[in-house]
Amino acid sequence: MAKSNLELVRECDNFPYYEDNRAAYTENLQNYYSFRVTGYDATLGYILNTVVDTFPWPKNCWSIDPAARTVTLVSLPGANAAQRSKLVAQSIADAVKQGNFELLKGWRNEMYPVYGPGGEFLLEMERSASPLFGIVTYGAHMTGYVDDPSGPKIWVPRRAKNKQTYPGMLDNTVAGGMCTGEIPSECIVREAMEEASLPESVVRANVVPRGCVTYTHVRDARAGGETGLIQPEVEYVYDLKLDPSVVPQPCDDEVEEFKLLSVSEVKEALSRGEFKPNCANIMIDFFVRHGILTPENEPDYLEIVARLHRRMDHPTASHCK
Amino acid sequence: MAKSNLELVRECDNFPYYEDNRAAYTENLQNYYSFRVTGYDATLGYILNTVVDTFPWPKNCWSIDPAARTVTLVSLPGANAAQRSKLVAQSIADAVKQGNFELLKGWRNEMYPVYGPGGEFLLEMERSASPLFGIVTYGAHMTGYVDDPSGPKIWVPRRAKNKQTYPGMLDNTVAGGMCTGEIPSECIVREAMEEASLPESVVRANVVPRGCVTYTHVRDARAGGETGLIQPEVEYVYDLKLDPSVVPQPCDDEVEEFKLLSVSEVKEALSRGEFKPNCANIMIDFFVRHGILTPENEPDYLEIVARLHRRMDHPTASHCK
Repeated sequence: MAKSNLELVRECDNFPYYEDNRAAYTENLQNYYSFRVTGYDATLGYILNTVVDTFPWPKNCWSIDPAARTVTLVSLPGANAAQRSKLVAQSIADAVKQGNFELLKGWRNEMYPVYGPGGEFLLEMERSASPLFGIVTYGAHMTGYVDDPSGPKIWVPRRAKNKQTYPGMLDNTVAGGMCTGEIPSECIVREAMEEASLPESVVRANVVPRGCVTYTHVRDARAGGETGLIQPEVEYVYDLKLDPSVVPQPCDDEVEEFKLLSVSEVKEALSRGEFKPNCANIMIDFFVRHGILTPENEPDYLEIVARLHRRMDHPTASHCK
Repeated sequence: MAKSNLELVRECDNFPYYEDNRAAYTENLQNYYSFRVTGYDATLGYILNTVVDTFPWPKNCWSIDPAARTVTLVSLPGANAAQRSKLVAQSIADAVKQGNFELLKGWRNEMYPVYGPGGEFLLEMERSASPLFGIVTYGAHMTGYVDDPSGPKIWVPRRAKNKQTYPGMLDNTVAGGMCTGEIPSECIVREAMEEASLPESVVRANVVPRGCVTYTHVRDARAGGETGLIQPEVEYVYDLKLDPSVVPQPCDDEVEEFKLLSVSEVKEALSRGEFKPNCANIMIDFFVRHGILTPENEPDYLEIVARLHRRMDHPTASHCK
């Protein structure tokens, strides 16, 4: 059964909207606790009830309030990000020892930042733990394409069959998560070298930032690990117009192969559900920005464009230098 | 005082968000009734309480429910769009006679469509009445620009000083509202000829659809007429790269002059508040899409991109042929 573009967007941005059904939205929120940090009036993420019940939550630094439905990291007044991060790291280490979370068995050894009101950096945590806390995560996705009289042709990699998450699915030319301290343009240059063997000079000279795609994803089995966890994500979007002579090549073992696909080949692969869900969103955004999907050939144009740019429920980062 | 890009976006998209303050959002909604049509389970617009109190609402076709806070157009089962539109037109004619609404003194003689669930065309009404009902309205905005080694230069018109709304302010190269039955690409070709004397052949050959900008605006004095009315709007966005030899010219009396401005000149005019509010949004969207505003030079990048693409509270149109 062919998937429509709106169905693909909904698979990725699959957390309910208040305006669609106010009662159902409010009821659904009862499945989660708010993740908070003392001294900051903000919800930093949504933690699934079953995680709240299972995670060790060392008493020296966590306060659980079932009435307010909050999980609060308690640190001394004047605590800094390093001190908060240490408390969180110790708690996550306890959870790893406890062994109850599938997700933590996929340890990434990368630190993801958490931001408070005004984009203040509050703490960082191991990447594999981030869906347990439901925090906003950040990445950069680049579409490499070749201009052709028939329209753009797009460099599409297939993920390695032994990859932890979404094995064998199609991906964006270059994509990666942003660790603490990384800015999107440097993330994309680094990933372009690591994942696609694209020379740094080619990327720096030609890459153009084109906006961002944002969504709130509820994880299913394909992501690996626990399901039902919330993953609000910001993906900064880049385009890279390439000379036909430049051919991306797998470099690490994360990518099986790159193929140069026509727009209709990409559309067919999308409708067959072959793209990793958030990468489908990035392709659809590319099609909107390049005038391939239009108000007159895409019946769900308005809903698609709005849902590619969901406003986050939580404070977000500023990567302004 | 220079305005930031986020301040400009907020001036246009100035209806509250639920996630910012749930209590305040709910309280604010008490200032409005829901506009509904019998047989359809959807709110089609928000009508300000003072409008509900003042509008004549002929009893043969309107049902006002203060408890449910709804204003419902009652038509016979099986009524069609033409029949509903006739009832609405008669009611608006009564209101014109009554003479209580400033807005209706700016009669436009253009019909705006109202869509129900699934994009079904339910009725149409005179453009000048649309903010009284708070319905979603549709338009198309095009940025005409010339590529220059220093970056794009943008054709910016100044609105005539005697224009009914936002006189003397800067505008997008071409912009117009979409009447019933019009599709965005035809709207932009028509307006390009009418407002900028751009030859149809040049526009058709080079115009590219690039997405849409959506927002919910609460009208202030600059819009003319009653204030506090809600205007949710969809603006389909087009780019037109022009040869330097093509110079837009005022054609009707709506535009005073066109100037070819550099990016920094446009940024300065934006920060001085010289652009009509929704046209500022379109310029900021152009800057994001063209890599002029980036995550690393615009501190409010994420909030700006999300608010340029607000998801509408009401059912919207499909302009798919």
